[in-house]
This record gives sequence, C-alpha cells and structure tokens, in this order.
Amino acid sequence: MASRSEQLHLAGFLHASHPVIHSHAAWRLPETDASGFLTPEYYQGIARTLERGKFDLLFFADVLCIADQYRGGFEYTVEHGGQSATMLDPLLVASVIGAATRSIGVGVTRSTTYFQPYDLARAFATLDHLTRGRAAWNVVTSASDSEAANFGLAQHLEHDTRYARAEDFIQAASALWASWGQNALRLDKQRGVFADASQVRRIDHVGPYVKVRGPLSVPRSPQGRPVIIQAGSSERGRDFAARHAEVVFTSPTNASAMKEFYGDLKTRVAAAGRNPRSCVILPAVMPFVAESESEAREKQALNHELADPELGLVTLSRNINHDLFQHPLDQPLGTLAHNRGHKSQLEQVLKLSSDENLTLRQLGKRFAESRLLLQLVGTPKQVADQLQALFEEETGDGFVISPASLPVAYEDFVRLVVPELQRRGLHRREYRGHTLRDHLGLPALDDARQAAAGTR
Amino acid sequence: MASRSEQLHLAGFLHASHPVIHSHAAWRLPETDASGFLTPEYYQGIARTLERGKFDLLFFADVLCIADQYRGGFEYTVEHGGQSATMLDPLLVASVIGAATRSIGVGVTRSTTYFQPYDLARAFATLDHLTRGRAAWNVVTSASDSEAANFGLAQHLEHDTRYARAEDFIQAASALWASWGQNALRLDKQRGVFADASQVRRIDHVGPYVKVRGPLSVPRSPQGRPVIIQAGSSERGRDFAARHAEVVFTSPTNASAMKEFYGDLKTRVAAAGRNPRSCVILPAVMPFVAESESEAREKQALNHELADPELGLVTLSRNINHDLFQHPLDQPLGTLAHNRGHKSQLEQVLKLSSDENLTLRQLGKRFAESRLLLQLVGTPKQVADQLQALFEEETGDGFVISPASLPVAYEDFVRLVVPELQRRGLHRREYRGHTLRDHLGLPALDDARQAAAGTR
Repeated sequence: MASRSEQLHLAGFLHASHPVIHSHAAWRLPETDASGFLTPEYYQGIARTLERGKFDLLFFADVLCIADQYRGGFEYTVEHGGQSATMLDPLLVASVIGAATRSIGVGVTRSTTYFQPYDLARAFATLDHLTRGRAAWNVVTSASDSEAANFGLAQHLEHDTRYARAEDFIQAASALWASWGQNALRLDKQRGVFADASQVRRIDHVGPYVKVRGPLSVPRSPQGRPVIIQAGSSERGRDFAARHAEVVFTSPTNASAMKEFYGDLKTRVAAAGRNPRSCVILPAVMPFVAESESEAREKQALNHELADPELGLVTLSRNINHDLFQHPLDQPLGTLAHNRGHKSQLEQVLKLSSDENLTLRQLGKRFAESRLLLQLVGTPKQVADQLQALFEEETGDGFVISPASLPVAYEDFVRLVVPELQRRGLHRREYRGHTLRDHLGLPALDDARQAAAGTR
Repeated sequence: MASRSEQLHLAGFLHASHPVIHSHAAWRLPETDASGFLTPEYYQGIARTLERGKFDLLFFADVLCIADQYRGGFEYTVEHGGQSATMLDPLLVASVIGAATRSIGVGVTRSTTYFQPYDLARAFATLDHLTRGRAAWNVVTSASDSEAANFGLAQHLEHDTRYARAEDFIQAASALWASWGQNALRLDKQRGVFADASQVRRIDHVGPYVKVRGPLSVPRSPQGRPVIIQAGSSERGRDFAARHAEVVFTSPTNASAMKEFYGDLKTRVAAAGRNPRSCVILPAVMPFVAESESEAREKQALNHELADPELGLVTLSRNINHDLFQHPLDQPLGTLAHNRGHKSQLEQVLKLSSDENLTLRQLGKRFAESRLLLQLVGTPKQVADQLQALFEEETGDGFVISPASLPVAYEDFVRLVVPELQRRGLHRREYRGHTLRDHLGLPALDDARQAAAGTR
C-alpha cells in the first residue's frame, strides 16, 4: 500500500447559518444567497453541487452560542451578521441533506462538553443509518464561556479537563456503537426472534466524567460508527487526533505551516500504533476562481473590501474567550494570557500580530477577509496548479474548500476546477464505494476492529 | 366561536423503531414491513400516506433505553423484539420526514430530564424552520431507572421533582424561542445590517433546575415555537398539561374514561386562564378495518394470537420501573408500591388486574394485544360510525390512530376510513393552512403572545 492516495480528498465546509464562515464578507456579496439559510433547499442545493463535484463530504462546524464576548454583548454580532449570529442545529440539517443526496458524506460537529454520550451516539448511529453509511462526527471540546452560560455553567472547563472529558466521552460513545454485533438482527417473524441477544451487550462504562450502561438502542450502523473528524491543533489536540481522528481538518496560513502540521501529525499517528493512511489530513483553502485571472482578483478584492475588521474581532474574541474590544483598536495587541479558549488560535494571532506588527484593527480585518487561510486566486488552471503543487508537496491528503460566497463559490469550483483536477487524474470521476469510509479509503469496521476501537 | 371544532383532528403515532408500538404483535404480522425501520423511505412513506389522509400530524414517542427491567436485563426484549428494543433518534427521522412532505405536522418526544433547554430549543426551532412551521414537541419527563443509567445517574428523579424540572425547563425553552422578535431579520447587504439587535434579547433564565443565558442562535421560527404536546395523565401531569399543552395525547381504555379525562382536562385548562379550544385532546384508538367485518375480526384475532404476554410485561415493567418477573406469572398481581415510574400507568394496571381478577400473564397478554386501548373493528362504515359516536360524545377533539401493523394499517385507514369521514363532513378534504398550528386551529403566536407564553 502506497503511503498516500494518488487522488486528493475534497471536503466542503459549512455552518448551518447565514453565509458567514471563514470569510466574514460572504453574506454581503451580491452573488450570495443571504436569505436561504432557514430553508432545507439551501443546504440540499449546496450538497447536491458538491456531490456533482464528487466531494468526499460536506461538513458542518458548530458553536453553541451567539458570539457575545466582543464589546461585552451579542449586539454587534447580530446587527452586522457576524459568525454565529445564527446557528441552526447541524444534525437536523445533515439529515435533510442525507435525504437529498446518495453518495456524499455528511459530517456534523458535536461538543463532548455539553452533550451526553448516549444521546450523541444514538444521534450519529441514526444519521449513519438514514444516510446508509455517510455520517461523520467532528469531535470538539468547545471553547467559550458564552457556551457555558447557555448550559448552566458559570465558566467553561479548562483546556486539559476538556480533553480528558473528550477522551472519556469518545470511549463511551465507541463502546455504544459496538454494543450491537454486526449480524445481531434476525427479523424472524415466524419464530418471533427479532435479534440474537448474545450479540448485544451492555457497556457499563464508568469513567471519570461520564457513566453509561447501554446497550445503545440502535443496531450496528452501516459504517460501524461515524467517521471521526477532529480539528484540534494544540499539543493536546494533536495527540487526541493521533489516537482517534480518521479525518483531520486544519487551517495553517501557508504551505510550510501545512507541511509542518502534516508531517508532525502523521508521525504522531504512527507513534499511536495506527497506519498513517487511516488518518486523512485536510488543510483548508479558499479559492477565488473565474474564467480570467483578473475576474478572480476582482472577486478577492470585493471580499476584502466588504470585510468588517470588527466582525473579525467578534469571532476572534469568541474563539479565544476574551473581549478584544478592551484593547486599543489602532495599536498592536502585544501579549495576552490564555483564557480557556482555543489555545492554538490565540498563539496563531499573537504570532501574526508580532511578526507583522499589525494593529488590532488590521488583525481583525485580516481575519474577516479570511486571510489566515491560504487563498487560491486565478483561472481554473491556475487554481488546479496550486492545489496540485500543495498536494505534491505533502501539505495534505486533500483539502477543505472554504467558500468565499454561497452557493456560487462552490458552483464555480465544481464547474471550473473539478474537471481540471479530474483531467489530471487528481480527483475521482465517479464515486467508487457507497460509504464515506469508502470515499476516504478507510478500512471497514468489522466486529473485531470495532471492539478494538471501543477499548483503545 | 363554538366550543369545539366541527371536524375531528387526526394524529398518527409512531416510534422511530421496528414496528412495535401499542400492539406488541405488529412486527410479526405477515403484512408488516419489519425490516424498513432503519431506512428513511420507511418513515417517509408512512408520513406521505398520512398526508394523503390529511392527518394533522404524525408524532414520535421516545424512550432513552432498551427496556431491561423485566427478567433483570435487556435480553428478552432484544430476542423477541419488545417495545424499545430499538429506538432511533426521532428528531433526525422527523427532519427526513419533513423533507418528503409539505403539510403534515411532525411531532417529536424529548425528555426535560435528560436534555438541556438550549440544545432542545435550538433543535425544535431548527425543525420548525426546516418544515416551514410543522414542528411539535411532546414534553415528557421520562420514567425509568434504565434511562437514568444511560445518562450517568444511579436512579431516576422522583415524580414531583421531574415535573418541577419540566416546569422550569419549558419556561427557559419558551423564553429562548421568544428571544428573537418576529421581524428582527433585516438582511440588508448594502448597509451591512443583518438584523435589528434591539429585537433580540438574552433571557438570563435562572431557575431551580436550569440556567440559560441566551439569546438562541435561531431567528424566530414560522410557528413562533413548536406546538406543545403532552401526555401525562397523573394529577401532576394533568395540571402541567392544563398550563402548557396545546395537544394532549391520552389512552383511556373505554369511552367513559375518555369522557372523564376530556371533561376534567378542559375544566383545568379553563381554570388555568386559557381558552379550552387552545388545548386539543386526542385519545388513542386502534382500528382494525377491512372491506368486510369478518376480515376485520380476523385481523384483530391474528394480532391477539401473536401477542406474547411476556413482551407486554417487558413494556409494563419499564413503564412502572419495576421488574414484574419477580411476581408469579399465573397469579393476580395484588398491590404494588409506586417506584418513580409512570404513576397513572401503574394505577391503571392495578385497577384492571383487580377489577377483572387477571393473572399477571393475562395482564401482560392484554397489554401486548394493545387492549388497554379502545380497538375499533369492522368495515370502513362501522369504524367511521364508532369514531363519529366517540367524537359526538365528547371523548376527544379527534383521535390518535395507533397502527396495528405498519405501514398497512395506516394505508387501510387512509384508503377506507378517511373518505368515509370526509363524506360525513367530519374530516378535512384539503389542508387549509400551512402550519401545524393552522391545522389544529390554534392561534398564531405573535410577539405579544410569545412573550406571555414565555412568562406564564
């Protein structure tokens, strides 16, 4: 088996919200559909587009609050349409997408801090059945006091405690998914035998954070369990990913940071006793593509023009769990202590600020423009060239495509860039398997592997 | 305004599971589809059938465990396909149904004991958007230690505490649903104004059981909030329903018990300061209908023949939170102390056992046959006669139709009985409105009503 796939994997990235994800200007672009986000057709249309482009999956991030750290409240966020001013339940949106597609995987973010393993395991097993094996779970530990306040806690759990709980949680959830043997169902009406009870077992999980008896009330799902996605990039996050993640999303700012992350994580995966190919690493990029290079540059320029620096600070404040409005906007940020938020994001922006001597406003602008992601600008051929080069440099096993507008940026990518990648043999022309695990080249989980996963 | 509607309301009743609901024989019938329950098409097909029959809604019960009190474990349940041997997440199934239908309401049960208001409110607001105003929430407090064991607790909350928490919970959830004003969204790309923040507010709910800050990250949904369903029939349950429920499901065994419940609850609703019409009461019945009366009787006889008495005791043991296998099967049950389970169910079976001097096995058989529900047997005309008589006697504002087989019993009811009811002017020929509230004749919830509901 070669050390990596010869074709790249592609993932779409979305919020179940108005169109503001990495680019905080997206909802304001003339081409963007700003009002469809409360309807199923909006999400189904995007998923069908990506399925036409033979993407591996579409995945939803999630946050359990309206960002309200910046300026000490939610008002600026809501007034100007900041990230997470709206956020529907992505699990329900994923179900609706599953019902409108046949092949593309559907990933959903769910927090190990604010949910219970039985509920979560049941929901994802259900999604895996309803999509016939296309479900993925993006494991997050959540990061802000605002989320805590919506779940009855005064403040958020500390970074290491969150990961310790996540570890406990994923073990309980994995055991629940393995609690029905793969051939347990009998459905023998004549004899009145519904299932072989000897293939179903309690899990009796008693961990430091969660206790669950089981068995789960859902028979083994097509993939055995959802594909596990993770996006943590702190030390602790990388170790967690090395043990559990089958897909890793990451968002380094440039190719060399991507290479560093890729090499480091593959090494950690091997050190954890896993085949490095069983962990598919996907850095995020944001393409601006058009028939001509100048048109593509105009698109990027309009994105930058419409990006409100303060909306960037809204999201940053939420992510690092600290109100950046407390600091002068037109001076560099200087230092800042870690406050239980996203540790790697904090480190990233502090480094960027000091490396380039950015004022806080400039930092917010960069972030709102989504320039902390690598942007790929040009004709279909130019964008494909850049993706090919990144892939060949081993920056990733494929890419998360972050949309600069919705749904047009995805339509353009699928119409213009995907055929170019296919011509080069870099992307599938047809889905070969039926499940998301098939698309990702991950081994099927039989009883033995499943049991091992439950106790790892 | 007349004191009640001139047409009856109809609700379908389902589990997101293999076909065992009230009748424990359902999955074994030759006509039943026993294997479709893990696919979306199975549920979508049933919903489309009921929509063809212009039902008000289809609603899902839920339990958060495999029944495992009886014989001290889950084995008998799983081996023989007892109720809740399987139970998918009904919220995801409801989403999938919403995507395949246009008019029928979709109700989902969610426990106030094992979920958090922010999560639950977000999920139902999402469902209400994705269905364009057809969502309902069946509020339950859960009843068994087995559910508690799946959520990290040694035993279930005591009856009154559960209701106190439910009261606190529903106030928080209602406030979250009202946290966005109905006209808050602006979507003004030109000016960069996404929403009017002055119409969005924190809720700062600090109750004895739940704390939530808000606002919810979902703009006001089409119905303002989901229709509230409740099914409690204990004293405490009836009072809760009188204050909050817009639809009440109930399952008395005969017409006189239905009348008693109907009169009592309408009186309580009025005493709570509400218009009695704003609470739609729907007793459950199980029709066995065929072209000829003898064929209908044969269907009922086959149901009874295939009903395993012990599977009845499996469900009863779960519901009353006590292992009935500890008692001799061929003697009457005698007395039994309340053990934090469903209080009214315990009282009902104790009364039935003593009134008719039933052995425990006979009791289990009755329950498995679904004879604790009123069964309506005969030709379409005979069944319509019985429904009309029940409706005219003021036993309900309509009925929950519990299926004796799936999906055939619903197909038969819609094909045979619904046209007869329509001919008599007792059932709508077309949906007149678009939302579930429209179908039920409930007033729309504007800002003022919503605010009142949040603080009631």
